[in-house]
Amino acid sequence: MERFQKGGYQGRLYPINPNAKEICGLKVYPDLSSLPEVPDMAMVCVPAKHVPSILEECARIGLRHIHILTAGFKETGTEEGKKLEEQIISISNEKGLLVIGPNGMGPYCPSIHLTAWGAIPGVSGTLGVIGQSGMITQRLTEYIGSLGVGVEKAVSIGNASVLDSTDFLEFMAGDEKIRVIAMYLESVKEGRRFFRLVSEVNREKPVILWKGGESQVGAMAAASHTGGLSGEQTLWDALYRQTGAIHVRSMEEWMDAVITLSLLPAPRGKRVFLVGGGGGNGVSYSDICINEGLDVPALSHDTMERLRQTVPLAGANAGNPLDMPRIFQDAAYLAEVLELGYEDPSIDIIVVDRLIPRIAFHFSDMSDSTAETAQFVKSKKHQKPTVFTVDSDGGDPDLAATGATLRAMLGKAGIPVYPSLNRAARALAHFHNYYARLNNTSIERKTLN
Amino acid sequence: MERFQKGGYQGRLYPINPNAKEICGLKVYPDLSSLPEVPDMAMVCVPAKHVPSILEECARIGLRHIHILTAGFKETGTEEGKKLEEQIISISNEKGLLVIGPNGMGPYCPSIHLTAWGAIPGVSGTLGVIGQSGMITQRLTEYIGSLGVGVEKAVSIGNASVLDSTDFLEFMAGDEKIRVIAMYLESVKEGRRFFRLVSEVNREKPVILWKGGESQVGAMAAASHTGGLSGEQTLWDALYRQTGAIHVRSMEEWMDAVITLSLLPAPRGKRVFLVGGGGGNGVSYSDICINEGLDVPALSHDTMERLRQTVPLAGANAGNPLDMPRIFQDAAYLAEVLELGYEDPSIDIIVVDRLIPRIAFHFSDMSDSTAETAQFVKSKKHQKPTVFTVDSDGGDPDLAATGATLRAMLGKAGIPVYPSLNRAARALAHFHNYYARLNNTSIERKTLN
Repeated sequence: MERFQKGGYQGRLYPINPNAKEICGLKVYPDLSSLPEVPDMAMVCVPAKHVPSILEECARIGLRHIHILTAGFKETGTEEGKKLEEQIISISNEKGLLVIGPNGMGPYCPSIHLTAWGAIPGVSGTLGVIGQSGMITQRLTEYIGSLGVGVEKAVSIGNASVLDSTDFLEFMAGDEKIRVIAMYLESVKEGRRFFRLVSEVNREKPVILWKGGESQVGAMAAASHTGGLSGEQTLWDALYRQTGAIHVRSMEEWMDAVITLSLLPAPRGKRVFLVGGGGGNGVSYSDICINEGLDVPALSHDTMERLRQTVPLAGANAGNPLDMPRIFQDAAYLAEVLELGYEDPSIDIIVVDRLIPRIAFHFSDMSDSTAETAQFVKSKKHQKPTVFTVDSDGGDPDLAATGATLRAMLGKAGIPVYPSLNRAARALAHFHNYYARLNNTSIERKTLN
Repeated sequence: MERFQKGGYQGRLYPINPNAKEICGLKVYPDLSSLPEVPDMAMVCVPAKHVPSILEECARIGLRHIHILTAGFKETGTEEGKKLEEQIISISNEKGLLVIGPNGMGPYCPSIHLTAWGAIPGVSGTLGVIGQSGMITQRLTEYIGSLGVGVEKAVSIGNASVLDSTDFLEFMAGDEKIRVIAMYLESVKEGRRFFRLVSEVNREKPVILWKGGESQVGAMAAASHTGGLSGEQTLWDALYRQTGAIHVRSMEEWMDAVITLSLLPAPRGKRVFLVGGGGGNGVSYSDICINEGLDVPALSHDTMERLRQTVPLAGANAGNPLDMPRIFQDAAYLAEVLELGYEDPSIDIIVVDRLIPRIAFHFSDMSDSTAETAQFVKSKKHQKPTVFTVDSDGGDPDLAATGATLRAMLGKAGIPVYPSLNRAARALAHFHNYYARLNNTSIERKTLN
């Protein structure tokens, strides 16, 4: 209730409790029948054993949309928990109730300030999230929000005993505000319907699917978490292969893919221009990109000619990777370099490694040019997909805060940013592969007609 | 010169310059012959074309230890650069000069405040570093230093035209203060000698070897960086396989392996106890560990009995992974859980996922118990290897700073800490595999005798 109020939710809120008179300054009703109107949705947080009777009461007054926050059902592995969950299912089916949960954080929609969980204020955007873990879904919304990527609707589905991920996916497919869909799932009930739907939706809106419980141990943990059966891994592998859903395997990979697919237009190819400083960085970044399946091609003759005019022979290197520490300080120069990348026909994607002032680099008093750079890239409206990496994850709070500040600055200008080149390269590979597959699919379909 | 002074270097410093009278408050000498004594080492930073004559001058006064900082040699790809580098080599060979560089940052030794590069004050410790990139070597020392891991000696070898990585490795093998060796290399000259030496040294001191230029593009970049030929990748693969050197492929993997091998005693096995909060985290962390080759076994009967007494049935889960958010706040309870892990015969390694207060988790006012926890783990002197993960790498400066502070606190208590479970799992896999191989080798050797 406090979170609804703090988040600025504009709808009417009715606390229901048989013992209290006032909660959070609001009049309390003893039961659903005493309410002055039928609410749009009920959020149920009474102990598990009372949930079935609450559902009966909802049905009686015609309240069909229900979120059950309460845990203590199938996921406990107890007979009582399983029985209670079965009751929820049978009541819901009989009465036509549309239930989110139990054991889930429920709906989240920043545009209407429906943010009973997650960061407040929520960042509104074009992402749809279907999560079978409240904490993981919250971490996603908080992380991407801090980097300028907002959510249209998220739902933490818990045990998903009535409405399942497939239902939410179908809904989000038709929601025009949603352009990218991120899912964290531990199990799916209607496998075939899910499979077909992912395949369809993924052609229109990238579906970034993280399946928890890919390992046997993980699957066992999933059973105690949301009570589901993870299913055969071979089936999931087939799903990824045949639907083209983007296959991620960790929080970081999921978040990075979401940011990339949300912010960037389709790339023309996978040829990356690596812009940074430090010879060793250039070498290892090339290795990492190649290892992820990206290309790091030679620059065109014209670009090289122009680069050679500004890049000194010693202590730097004109080429791809570009080793030119001046870009860290001189926004106008970095803009020149980016222009070269935009114009070079052999380049599809630009990655800027934005090293930040560090003690070890002797330039802690360096002026920061990130704001200018962000403005420049934004003004180019992604002539070519352009992303940044800013790393800062050790034990130095100042460095860490500076890194986060620069990342936020870039993110809020609509530029994807990552805390390491490894993570950038992996995300860009997903990004490229998604569109490459889409184009091949289109061609195949044309051939068939 | 400023860095030497700022770092508190105690030895005598002689600036040499034909035009200046005083530099950094020190009397300047016009040339080497005017010096009042023969220095232990020369650091050469005159333009490339003057370097050969300086070497001649060094030889004349009997100064044999030389570091050439200057760039502009073979790595430029020009005829002039190549010729100058050949001159350096022939003068050095003829006169018996021991040269570090050119095009490298040279030696670094915090225990004697020889920190002309890298963070000041340097953190003194037991690591030896041989780096063929100044920036990468600096980032390592700064990163690990912020997490409590110090360096005994580091050397940035640049083009390594006279003394090569093999020479430094041989030296570090005999340096009793050095217990772990980290290398970033782009090329090696005496392949066979290097191969044999890595094989020998790695049995006594873990050798963590990151080879830049594993891809063809990376190898080309390496040629313009340090002028070396990367060599056939199949040879490097054979080297890793046959020597058992720890094979890392990125900055992050290198740093994490260094921290783990530096701080932890050998593990008994690879059975991990995952301690954290959040059901989805437990599921995905299990997947990640299994994927890295670690085990996440069921806890013993006794441990489970005792856990069940404190872990509620709903909203948490007793087991491995342990999902129990109380550990984030209650240091005494976390200590109890760790004790269970130390006593459980089915567990070898403990990983604590230390989620930090976040906006999204609604407990930003949570009291922090990290200091107490660090003290507890330290007092246990690693009964079993115990590591922490603290993630905080988005665009929120407060969260980032808090994360770094907690990581530093743990690191400075001698506890390995990582910014993600992915990175922890990879590092622990390297850690386990190193010792597992060592033991098998020992057994084989015993059998042969």
